[in-house]
Amino acid sequence: MDTFVVVGGDAAGMSAASKAKRDDPSLDVVVFERGEWVSYGACGLPYYVKGEIQSLEELVSVTPEQFREERDIDLRTGHDVVDIDTDEQTVTATHADGETVQPYDRLLVATGAAAVEPPIEGLDREGVYTLGSMSDGNDLREYVARARAEGDLEQPDEGPACQYLKSCAGPVGVVGGGYIGVEMVEALAANSFEVHLFQRGERILKPFGPDIADTVLEHIRDQGVVVHLDAAVTELAGGDTVGAVVTEAERVPVDMALVGTGVRPRTALAEAAGVECGETGAIATDSYRETNVPDVYAAGDCAEATHVVTGDPAYVPLALTANRHGRAVGATVAGTPTEGGGVAGTAAVKSFDVEASRTGLFPEAAEAAGFDPISRTITTKSRAGYYPEGGKIDVTLVADRGTGRVLGGGLVSAYGEGAVHRSHALVGAVTEGVTVDELANYDLAYAPPFNTTWDPVLTAAKVLGGDR
Amino acid sequence: MDTFVVVGGDAAGMSAASKAKRDDPSLDVVVFERGEWVSYGACGLPYYVKGEIQSLEELVSVTPEQFREERDIDLRTGHDVVDIDTDEQTVTATHADGETVQPYDRLLVATGAAAVEPPIEGLDREGVYTLGSMSDGNDLREYVARARAEGDLEQPDEGPACQYLKSCAGPVGVVGGGYIGVEMVEALAANSFEVHLFQRGERILKPFGPDIADTVLEHIRDQGVVVHLDAAVTELAGGDTVGAVVTEAERVPVDMALVGTGVRPRTALAEAAGVECGETGAIATDSYRETNVPDVYAAGDCAEATHVVTGDPAYVPLALTANRHGRAVGATVAGTPTEGGGVAGTAAVKSFDVEASRTGLFPEAAEAAGFDPISRTITTKSRAGYYPEGGKIDVTLVADRGTGRVLGGGLVSAYGEGAVHRSHALVGAVTEGVTVDELANYDLAYAPPFNTTWDPVLTAAKVLGGDR
Repeated sequence: MDTFVVVGGDAAGMSAASKAKRDDPSLDVVVFERGEWVSYGACGLPYYVKGEIQSLEELVSVTPEQFREERDIDLRTGHDVVDIDTDEQTVTATHADGETVQPYDRLLVATGAAAVEPPIEGLDREGVYTLGSMSDGNDLREYVARARAEGDLEQPDEGPACQYLKSCAGPVGVVGGGYIGVEMVEALAANSFEVHLFQRGERILKPFGPDIADTVLEHIRDQGVVVHLDAAVTELAGGDTVGAVVTEAERVPVDMALVGTGVRPRTALAEAAGVECGETGAIATDSYRETNVPDVYAAGDCAEATHVVTGDPAYVPLALTANRHGRAVGATVAGTPTEGGGVAGTAAVKSFDVEASRTGLFPEAAEAAGFDPISRTITTKSRAGYYPEGGKIDVTLVADRGTGRVLGGGLVSAYGEGAVHRSHALVGAVTEGVTVDELANYDLAYAPPFNTTWDPVLTAAKVLGGDR
Repeated sequence: MDTFVVVGGDAAGMSAASKAKRDDPSLDVVVFERGEWVSYGACGLPYYVKGEIQSLEELVSVTPEQFREERDIDLRTGHDVVDIDTDEQTVTATHADGETVQPYDRLLVATGAAAVEPPIEGLDREGVYTLGSMSDGNDLREYVARARAEGDLEQPDEGPACQYLKSCAGPVGVVGGGYIGVEMVEALAANSFEVHLFQRGERILKPFGPDIADTVLEHIRDQGVVVHLDAAVTELAGGDTVGAVVTEAERVPVDMALVGTGVRPRTALAEAAGVECGETGAIATDSYRETNVPDVYAAGDCAEATHVVTGDPAYVPLALTANRHGRAVGATVAGTPTEGGGVAGTAAVKSFDVEASRTGLFPEAAEAAGFDPISRTITTKSRAGYYPEGGKIDVTLVADRGTGRVLGGGLVSAYGEGAVHRSHALVGAVTEGVTVDELANYDLAYAPPFNTTWDPVLTAAKVLGGDR
């Protein structure tokens, strides 16, 4: 009987374990997880901190007990894998009762990503938070509750707490204008904090391109968040507890600082075992997620994937890819070699009452990949002009001038106006190598409550086609 | 100087005229329109009758004056084209002042569609309405206002009139459970009418497949609409005024009946001129929308299009195709031969608080086209399970068993949960010949406020892939 061992019990790891056991119940499937939580939705943490979700358990899709009892997976939480021996085909894990050496026939490294530690002084001060794990979420929510209690604020009601009350707690600082940053300024503002967002560069949400990012920025500022651009944070100053965010230009007093400046792949364990990383710094794999070491796979936030446009390795650590590639590895080790597909760098984000999406290559990356990109952002109505609901929606579309191939794009609209779901059309176009003229001819769904006769995506393709 | 003549001033006709003139200002562009309205959004009529739109003018995207003055198009409203002479290359139009013979170099037939006259007795009784034209919309709205006044009901407020008050006017009957039918039962119920919907077959919304259609049906019934299935209407009985809808099984008293049993292409004028129709009964064209008669084009609701899956001619008279094919003809006659693309039979509909979409081939049509279809409907969450908003969404996916190619599909959800916009992914897959396994690997946008990690479309593809 073969043994499939998984290191890391989140999206990629548990997807692989579940799929392998389901497809081949004769497999021994052993998962080592350092913490106590498995298969949790880290993407939901901002909504837990905000107060829209009432318990961390709600973020768990399948509990450890369910994995053990219903799925017959030998899940060992509280087990920290400290060594992989690829010659002996064993992993060594430490735990409360000592050490376990576990043989494997196939191994999946799903060690995830860790928060980048930016070159900022004072990161170890009290009152400095990150938001990557369940315990991070717990700490942050406790901070919010404590600060609100001290400020004599009412607890937020259950359900959407979108009142965005007049700021009367804090001030607090959020360092980094990426996904975590723009989601967390909402979570904190909704809890009545005066919120400062610090972004090193001249724009937040860089992967979304300037037009979409600026629309989100304007909306965030309209909600009362103070956004500091070109503001590289050098220090989180204070005594034991953080008291100010310091940039080259200014010193902003804060009671708390959340640092969300990106993640890096956790590769040390695998590298020590001779597993090679690619140029992105993440673990390199073939299209079946097998590493340079036979029978050792890597998937999720620790591993590279292949970009659907460039065909090159890319590091885009997001939840869907982890689930998909984990599942593919599970199918493969259960006997059906399965490729998990590429990544398009697709992402979605909501902040306050705005939603945005992006996929594929924007001009800078497209040029680096050898294309001659043209790009255009159009603004149009999100529904039929005469329909009583609706608003504006912006579409950025990027194509190769010579071939007309759609390389990337994104949308931004008020929350509920479809900037995210409509991006499904762009993902298909980017993945299939569709041209702007072909996309403009797509027979997309139309009815007045949902779009103009030409959906905004079609209008963007039509306009960009005219630019060539 | 060449003359481009257009017969019919709605979506296809005005799109062609505008594009031709814009691309080649030296063209003489003449449009004959029988009525007084041009370029209007007939799709908005249900919302005008409902009371969400306050004037018919709001449905007009460009006025006749704008076409004449801003776009330099010789638009002649009130001109009824009675003859096309393809040898002499002239059209003859009658109007208040007599008759005009207009030479053309290129001609577009954009005569649209007319309501099917079903084999029902009493269609000419007072109180029997259809909903195809602006004057139809006007008549129906006047009826609603009159009936409400007689019933001593308050006028509906401006804006969404979604209170669905307790029925106290009517009863009224809607004959036909297609798009118009399901949109109009909402419009009438929102105005406090007791509404009866009569559908000849066992299901409403046949093109959406049984699972989606039944979900919509259940929702409509939950709103208090009385739906009569397998109820072929034989007579609209009464004296001068309609008083009852009669089926083989029953006789339902009504004060008014709206007949919406589909449309047929208006081809008589073109056929009399030697223009050929295809097997669908609509005007046959090549991929540039040129008919069998050189320099005579046909586009919009009077013409066929090519189905993206079967490659065969199809008759799907909907607004986007009319716009797109009209525009393509405009570009072609202005010197840039342009194909307008195929149709996927994509459609969207909202009724009360439910939205639905469909595209491509469902099993019956797929079998007729020589495929070996498999189909599955899944039900999943529309957003992350822990996210405070959201609901359920159903996805029907149809694929070819042998190749795995996605042939069609559709979605249904509560209004606002994305059943329509998410269908953009299915349209791309159907158009590009993507397999279910490829679709399941799409890197679609994900964030908790918008979907589960696997968007419902991906889950459907994953499940159907497992069925093969």
